[in-house]
Amino acid sequence: MPSDRTPPIAEDAAERVSLVARRVGIDTYRENVAYLRRDCPVYRAEGFQALSKVEVTATNGEQRRSILAVVNVVDDVRLLGDCDLGLSEEAFAYLGIAEGHPVRIAHAEPPISMPSLKRKIAGERLTHDELHSIVRDIAGHRYSKIELAAFVVATNQFELDRDEVLYLTEAMVDVGRKLDWDEKPVVDKHCIGGLPGNRTSMIVVPIVAAHGMLIPKTSSRAITSPAGTADTMECLCRVDLPFERMREIVHAHRGCLAWGGRAALSPADDVLISVERPLSIDSPGQMVASILSKKVAAGSTHLVLDIPLGPTAKVRHMDDAQRLKKLFEYVAHRMGVTLDAVITDGRQPVGHGIGPALEVRDVMQVLNNDPAAPIDLRNKALRLAGRVLEFDRDIRGGDGFAVARDILDSGRALAKMNAIIDAQGRAAELPRPARLTHEVESPADGTVTAIDCERMARIARLAGAPKVKGAGVDLLKKLGDRVARGEPLYRILTDTTTELAFARDVAVRASGFAIGAPEEIAHGYVEF
Amino acid sequence: MPSDRTPPIAEDAAERVSLVARRVGIDTYRENVAYLRRDCPVYRAEGFQALSKVEVTATNGEQRRSILAVVNVVDDVRLLGDCDLGLSEEAFAYLGIAEGHPVRIAHAEPPISMPSLKRKIAGERLTHDELHSIVRDIAGHRYSKIELAAFVVATNQFELDRDEVLYLTEAMVDVGRKLDWDEKPVVDKHCIGGLPGNRTSMIVVPIVAAHGMLIPKTSSRAITSPAGTADTMECLCRVDLPFERMREIVHAHRGCLAWGGRAALSPADDVLISVERPLSIDSPGQMVASILSKKVAAGSTHLVLDIPLGPTAKVRHMDDAQRLKKLFEYVAHRMGVTLDAVITDGRQPVGHGIGPALEVRDVMQVLNNDPAAPIDLRNKALRLAGRVLEFDRDIRGGDGFAVARDILDSGRALAKMNAIIDAQGRAAELPRPARLTHEVESPADGTVTAIDCERMARIARLAGAPKVKGAGVDLLKKLGDRVARGEPLYRILTDTTTELAFARDVAVRASGFAIGAPEEIAHGYVEF
Repeated sequence: MPSDRTPPIAEDAAERVSLVARRVGIDTYRENVAYLRRDCPVYRAEGFQALSKVEVTATNGEQRRSILAVVNVVDDVRLLGDCDLGLSEEAFAYLGIAEGHPVRIAHAEPPISMPSLKRKIAGERLTHDELHSIVRDIAGHRYSKIELAAFVVATNQFELDRDEVLYLTEAMVDVGRKLDWDEKPVVDKHCIGGLPGNRTSMIVVPIVAAHGMLIPKTSSRAITSPAGTADTMECLCRVDLPFERMREIVHAHRGCLAWGGRAALSPADDVLISVERPLSIDSPGQMVASILSKKVAAGSTHLVLDIPLGPTAKVRHMDDAQRLKKLFEYVAHRMGVTLDAVITDGRQPVGHGIGPALEVRDVMQVLNNDPAAPIDLRNKALRLAGRVLEFDRDIRGGDGFAVARDILDSGRALAKMNAIIDAQGRAAELPRPARLTHEVESPADGTVTAIDCERMARIARLAGAPKVKGAGVDLLKKLGDRVARGEPLYRILTDTTTELAFARDVAVRASGFAIGAPEEIAHGYVEF
Repeated sequence: MPSDRTPPIAEDAAERVSLVARRVGIDTYRENVAYLRRDCPVYRAEGFQALSKVEVTATNGEQRRSILAVVNVVDDVRLLGDCDLGLSEEAFAYLGIAEGHPVRIAHAEPPISMPSLKRKIAGERLTHDELHSIVRDIAGHRYSKIELAAFVVATNQFELDRDEVLYLTEAMVDVGRKLDWDEKPVVDKHCIGGLPGNRTSMIVVPIVAAHGMLIPKTSSRAITSPAGTADTMECLCRVDLPFERMREIVHAHRGCLAWGGRAALSPADDVLISVERPLSIDSPGQMVASILSKKVAAGSTHLVLDIPLGPTAKVRHMDDAQRLKKLFEYVAHRMGVTLDAVITDGRQPVGHGIGPALEVRDVMQVLNNDPAAPIDLRNKALRLAGRVLEFDRDIRGGDGFAVARDILDSGRALAKMNAIIDAQGRAAELPRPARLTHEVESPADGTVTAIDCERMARIARLAGAPKVKGAGVDLLKKLGDRVARGEPLYRILTDTTTELAFARDVAVRASGFAIGAPEEIAHGYVEF
């Protein structure tokens, strides 16, 4: 059996037999499925079973593409002929062939990096080449969910050392696309997440772009939170932009606020996240590799990083925050990114609104210099924008805040935001706050001493955010405010009575607010 | 929304909407799949997505059953109506309803034990109740593959302490079926695996049963090895016996050699193994829980355990073997099982043949007192049988071997084996050794100083074992044998020229035999 490379045994051993490709019209999302009739001669001869992993290969002229898929065995003769290979939607699309095209299948090879994965499971340290090999297999969808989960748990437990994090980050950049903006610096601002209402990007970007620095911001949609920057920006304009359109906008306006999901910037990260989320795993090494690989791939050269610290934030102790900061700094430096990581006050949600439309209202109040604008959102955005502006060699250290405030107060930030919105494609109308409301009242006279970020996020999600743009929670009181018994603490907004009932039920069990004496407020959280 | 228990939020929140059950004739093995049309009103309203996890519930008179399934989205209108819920074969069978029966679906609850799983991922020690709750969720198929892999890797890394292993074992017994033989003692013999040709059970069982002790042996089929006891016994007779038939045979003949897969003795173990195998994870704690849970569930009260130790066996260092032995002893004692664990010589395969039919030949030569019988298989089987016999209070410690030898030499063991074979259902004819052969020759004059068990197993599998009963490897030389250059070391037997070529290729790269001076043979491996 001649071959131009030394093939692994199993590939030789499996006789590849030709079948006819059929699109079965079943969408299995990222999990490729190959459907085979039980009475198919290939199925019988090769000893495939339901859930066997196979490699499906189609040759189309010069092009040869293959995918890995799991076998489902079909008894229904309406669905497939006995020499047909049915393919799920994504699998069919990837092979790029027409129905009826011949395809070959063989028992799948185990991924090349399996020995390295097993070494990591055993707690050993991996080399540069090993981590690159693992990430290539992950990005190539060669890992099963079992193998992905094993990698995520193993790297979570025996924490990756800082060089392993560096190798992982480099590898994640290498397997994806890298954007090039033809000039430097390319600045960016990112938050590690977990703080509801923290929509500073929508204020920082117009300020920085108005100053003339290049800030092509890409954001994610909410996965487990009540709103991501992409969800919120989408209330105002289109965010799903092809890269060429994004480039035009950025060159014309010095900035944008787009959804990053379309660019395939870090495909291995997208695969890993699909496993990390259900396990709620977010170890420091994985977080650093995930964030920095996306930033490097997006072409950023200078980054301000927001690390909120608080009792219900993602990072809960100053020691952990400092260690995380050092790890970000080490990897960023080695990747050639200038990083300014700031530990911020994460004791409570930022601004008043939680949910896309409510957060848009807060952001636009700040940009409009409306006296009703939430002061904490304004101040935090100005501080972060100031840090970004100080990447400009002409701005003296410490002057960034004042420059940012001038740009905001003068209306230039608002004008820039409107230009960006128009360029991206302004929405016909703004989503309104949801119609049905319920106010949660204070059980006692006193001072607001704590607000539970996780609880607020959960209530906002039960109310329908981010799917229902106008739904969410509107905070009427913040940390340190005096309240009287019966006075409303926050308002729940929803579109349906059912959702209102569920969100209210959760709020009744625990409102998420603590009322007490002023000295009970947690201290030691820096205003940077 | 009234309910007779305090329901978790999400269950309330999901409106359960009625659909019509359809059997779609797709076999997805253990992974339940629910097929929904993309234009199904429920799909749209509830925000299900491909790969969403849902709970499907069917009420049939008094009986209410529910399963968890993942959603696949169907665009093909031939397959389903827009108010149909398609179900994969196992899912449909479990619900026990007819086609067209109404079913309801809702977003699935996360498994109750998720917080405990997350504690284990974080490296914490779990309590009795936590491990029971995890095992209940696993046996109830409530864990996704991601969650299963996370559990397996987390318990592999932060090794379970011995009480955690005990709790895990107890829990695995609790969720399954337990066999009751109405008398005591019920004796058993088990090997932890990894040694090719180690078919002692087929000799131990007839000896022990001929002595009159109750030995209802259940064995597994090969998963990654070239033959399991069930595969080998199947050359001689039926092994897939319903429990009632097994009970009749055992009561009539004092023993059996059946396949254990039918009894659902430790369903959680079956689920865990499906994840451990692809990751090649076999940590001490998981091994002990897996083996002892199956033995307790099978009703065994006394167990002789074979722990082979050797450079290419499963356990490779005496320290590890001793630690594993202590762990088995601790858990067995707490579970009320009398255990005699013996560390055996695992430096080379046992007997001559590797592969079902070749191993049957070896076993029958021993039982027939054939002078050609492999002496190491005979001796090991007699020693293990002797240990089992010493569970009989009337046999003095140290006398077991001699009693076992008498039973074997007198032909009583052979007569008992024939009685068991007839009772289980004798095969019409014995499978013959495969037709095509290739002999691997010694590259030099010298002594056989090592035989690689893993290599031999791999070559036997490439030759077709256990699927092709007559295929495998026949060892012509063993450790310590003198060989001349060009003299055959072993014979590869297969049914097809392709398989012969692959097996031979692997043997050419490394034969698995080391030829050297007698003093190079590894020492320190006890004959127990």
